[in-house]
Amino acid sequence: MRTQVAIIGAGPAGLLLGHILRRAGVGFVILEQKSREYVLGRVRAGVLEQGSVDILRELGLDADLAARGLTHHGIYLQYEGERHHLDFVDLVGRTVTVYGQQALVRHLLAEHHRIGSDVRFEVDGVTPHDIDTDAPFVTIGGPEGERIDCDIVVGADGYHGVCRPAIPGVQALERSYPYAWLGILADVAPSTDDLIYALHPDGFAMHSMRSREVSRLYLQVDPGESVDDWSDERIWEALQTRLGVPGWTLREGAITEKSITPMRSFVASTLEHGRLFLVGDAGHIVPPTGAKGLNSAIADVALLGRSLAAHFRGDDALLKRYSDSALARQWKVQQFSQWMTEMLHVHREVADEAARAFRYRSQLGQLEYTTGSRHAQAALAEQYAGLPF
Amino acid sequence: MRTQVAIIGAGPAGLLLGHILRRAGVGFVILEQKSREYVLGRVRAGVLEQGSVDILRELGLDADLAARGLTHHGIYLQYEGERHHLDFVDLVGRTVTVYGQQALVRHLLAEHHRIGSDVRFEVDGVTPHDIDTDAPFVTIGGPEGERIDCDIVVGADGYHGVCRPAIPGVQALERSYPYAWLGILADVAPSTDDLIYALHPDGFAMHSMRSREVSRLYLQVDPGESVDDWSDERIWEALQTRLGVPGWTLREGAITEKSITPMRSFVASTLEHGRLFLVGDAGHIVPPTGAKGLNSAIADVALLGRSLAAHFRGDDALLKRYSDSALARQWKVQQFSQWMTEMLHVHREVADEAARAFRYRSQLGQLEYTTGSRHAQAALAEQYAGLPF
Repeated sequence: MRTQVAIIGAGPAGLLLGHILRRAGVGFVILEQKSREYVLGRVRAGVLEQGSVDILRELGLDADLAARGLTHHGIYLQYEGERHHLDFVDLVGRTVTVYGQQALVRHLLAEHHRIGSDVRFEVDGVTPHDIDTDAPFVTIGGPEGERIDCDIVVGADGYHGVCRPAIPGVQALERSYPYAWLGILADVAPSTDDLIYALHPDGFAMHSMRSREVSRLYLQVDPGESVDDWSDERIWEALQTRLGVPGWTLREGAITEKSITPMRSFVASTLEHGRLFLVGDAGHIVPPTGAKGLNSAIADVALLGRSLAAHFRGDDALLKRYSDSALARQWKVQQFSQWMTEMLHVHREVADEAARAFRYRSQLGQLEYTTGSRHAQAALAEQYAGLPF
Repeated sequence: MRTQVAIIGAGPAGLLLGHILRRAGVGFVILEQKSREYVLGRVRAGVLEQGSVDILRELGLDADLAARGLTHHGIYLQYEGERHHLDFVDLVGRTVTVYGQQALVRHLLAEHHRIGSDVRFEVDGVTPHDIDTDAPFVTIGGPEGERIDCDIVVGADGYHGVCRPAIPGVQALERSYPYAWLGILADVAPSTDDLIYALHPDGFAMHSMRSREVSRLYLQVDPGESVDDWSDERIWEALQTRLGVPGWTLREGAITEKSITPMRSFVASTLEHGRLFLVGDAGHIVPPTGAKGLNSAIADVALLGRSLAAHFRGDDALLKRYSDSALARQWKVQQFSQWMTEMLHVHREVADEAARAFRYRSQLGQLEYTTGSRHAQAALAEQYAGLPF
């Protein structure tokens, strides 16, 4: 077959790009290695920047979001047993929306089904070819399989995907963190209106939510730990300790999901080579502290979608700048995610006791300054609610 | 002899405290181990926060400062060959003043001489005693020496002084940095109106000044390096490379001073024990990047001076909170100094190449965000120009 854009990967990035292309009258196919059930089952991010909400609305893809998304006006930063509210609306006139990535994927996929898009799951052996020529193509299903001729290949296939390694000489700039997040979903109404980010001597903790009935909670754990080390009882005890403040109660409920996520920062040295373009996790990963992973993917896709629409109208200016523009935004996002992460986690890996004590106390200094200064609050707010797309 | 306050150390902190006490009618002696020439010869900090200038003015100690200080309205941040100006007046309505610590010490000392203060140099074996009783005293000159009875002992004797170790169980929270500053004084008019802080792949560089005729310049070097490794020619070459931007010329001149300073962050766990109180470097050290060392000492002294004046009027409330109040401000200053330092230095110590590349690029992301966001600029400006005393 022949199409204009072959999108590899049916996560939120690939699915959203398909909708943007469809609106621009550009033909596409979406090729996903995993099953539909697997893709629909992944529990991931849950906070949308205002820019992400805006683009879904512009595309008419916000019906479910409008019905189920929870608009939040800020966050809480907690340390030394005190909780401080940052009001994003007051500070920078913007909001964020709590809406699970799972719900977004389900809605984007349902809309593709409704409009009859070519979205294929369980596609084996997806391989891009001749991306540095004017006639790239993608093969699927091995030697006996199908060849898809196209003008553009988009790698929306995540960190472990096949597209980034297809770029000659591409480098991975990255860092790892000496801690991980144990995340749970619990069938209990959230005990907070806005998200709580807490630094406690035992480690970071966070109270988020998925809906009015489902809470999402996180604990800093060591990267080597297993969910088997964490009984439901131990999890709630740690959450009560780390999130507790006088006069407030954390409601407990049945834990329905439990997983440990390592923390990593990663950025590819380029997001393009010839006719291949990378979006989302294929090009960059942030630690989850600033809620920037899904939003960065949406920012990439918004930019690439515009650039491809212009390209197929004969204007290549935007597309030529895609990698530089997307990476410039991404590095600002990276430094914010890293800053939030390092400010809020306990650095047990610092071997020297005096240095470890310095580290923890200077993080309190950061939090004291940030919560006490309107300028610092506004800087956090504008980054959390999202830099311009 | 008997006095009300025995001040150990005749650096800017001890000398300024003497003036504040004199104004409050409180008796004092200042005891300095080093010679007058040594104290007058030390080349140190050179940028005063607006709060530091204000307090010198209130005390009538600003005659020399008013004549020779250079009011600056901002700083430059430079990276990737581009120089970005941050206008503190526009951002937060405040300025900083370039005025060497050496000139300040000279003026404070001359004023002590004029008013007949008891300031003693080359005092051997200064030792505080009985600081946890109501009748502390200081001995000098060994067993055959003098005993100075007093109500209060102030440790203004620096990181290596005798006062901090006199506090039982005091802890040093600290961190070191894997780089140092090579600083020079040069007989040449500064090539810039405001200070330039530059991140360059070769390392940090900074263009400061002491007067309209004398430039002060710094280069990031490895901590193990010696001034002997740095000929004048090599220094100018490195400065030209790291500070260079198109259309701008760095004027060179005779180098009159050359020294290497290690970078360290340090905060004592407490600044008081009984009748002993610590100010300045005796209690805390910052890396020099944010120009906070001298200003922190002045902030301590302003607070302790007010607290002691109240104490001798019979009101102990301020003095009881001195350590907590001074440390709360100091930890905000520490995190700022650390942030500026880490953003602007090349981290060659990161062994892994991908992690080192990530580090450098994320520092550029910090600089791009900081110079591009008015909120971030204002946060930097309010901290650089100085948090409230």
